[in-house]
Amino acid sequence: MSFSDIEVLRLGHRVGRDPRITTHLALVARAMGANKFTLAGDQDEKLFDNIASVNERFGHGIACRYEHSPMKMLRRIAASNDESRPVIIHLTMYGEPFKKTIPNIPKQRNALVVVGGAKVPAELFSISDYNLAVGNQPHSEVAALALFLDCWTEGAGFEREYTNPQLVISPSKSGKDVKEV
Amino acid sequence: MSFSDIEVLRLGHRVGRDPRITTHLALVARAMGANKFTLAGDQDEKLFDNIASVNERFGHGIACRYEHSPMKMLRRIAASNDESRPVIIHLTMYGEPFKKTIPNIPKQRNALVVVGGAKVPAELFSISDYNLAVGNQPHSEVAALALFLDCWTEGAGFEREYTNPQLVISPSKSGKDVKEV
Repeated sequence: MSFSDIEVLRLGHRVGRDPRITTHLALVARAMGANKFTLAGDQDEKLFDNIASVNERFGHGIACRYEHSPMKMLRRIAASNDESRPVIIHLTMYGEPFKKTIPNIPKQRNALVVVGGAKVPAELFSISDYNLAVGNQPHSEVAALALFLDCWTEGAGFEREYTNPQLVISPSKSGKDVKEV
Repeated sequence: MSFSDIEVLRLGHRVGRDPRITTHLALVARAMGANKFTLAGDQDEKLFDNIASVNERFGHGIACRYEHSPMKMLRRIAASNDESRPVIIHLTMYGEPFKKTIPNIPKQRNALVVVGGAKVPAELFSISDYNLAVGNQPHSEVAALALFLDCWTEGAGFEREYTNPQLVISPSKSGKDVKEV
């Protein structure tokens, strides 16, 4: 990969309501260049099992972990003077236009991309280095993450390699071309 | 808008399992330049109510309808010699790379973007004018639709205008800037 490490932090996961949206977030992270997915809110082993199963079948691409105190973690990172700390990028419909702002963010830094849940603490806006909006209309955190990652990696997120896949899909004009390896 | 009409057709909606994913699809369609959202599979008045409520609050941007026989509709369109018929574009992880293929699709034609559900009939691959993959890894139909629309409209989907909004969100570096109008 020609870009730095990317961690996606999903805040406020609710096990009864969000499993599919959060699974889609983790899969988008995996498919588009992130190497870490961190879950906060409710713990959800089933979700981690699903992602492990995709890693198993389509190749290892992302490591998942649970974070009990995400705001504490973010405060600690924001307060650090260490130049190797990641840039905290918060995706929100209230932020600055992502395509205009991304060129101003130093690309050699690792990125910690924060995706809000149902209730985002107001403090997150001040703790984050950048509050980026993927449009200012309500739509989807899954779409926002995908568009952000595509822009951040300049499309290269899709070209990463996955280790030890069992299945490989090749592009096809007119059907399914899946190979077992 | 500088691009032609875009209709998004969601196949195979399941009311018990998919309401949030399908809602996100409709909201992405609305936020990124589509003007019609057509639901197939289970009927879902609650989903339509949700989108109507977003139209009401943030401005009218998309018309929703239910289609009982989507494959019949697609067959009819595909068989038509009418040059004004929309191009049928099927989003699938098995297709051709979207960014390389989109420049070959005539942009003055209206687009009918088909987003599959749990089970996609094999016939869809042959009926569609284009089978486009947004990456060949499993991720999310919401992400695929967003990336497709961004590429298809060359980013202009985000700049459309919405009629009679009650709320307008303005971009902000550090907080929420929402105005009632």
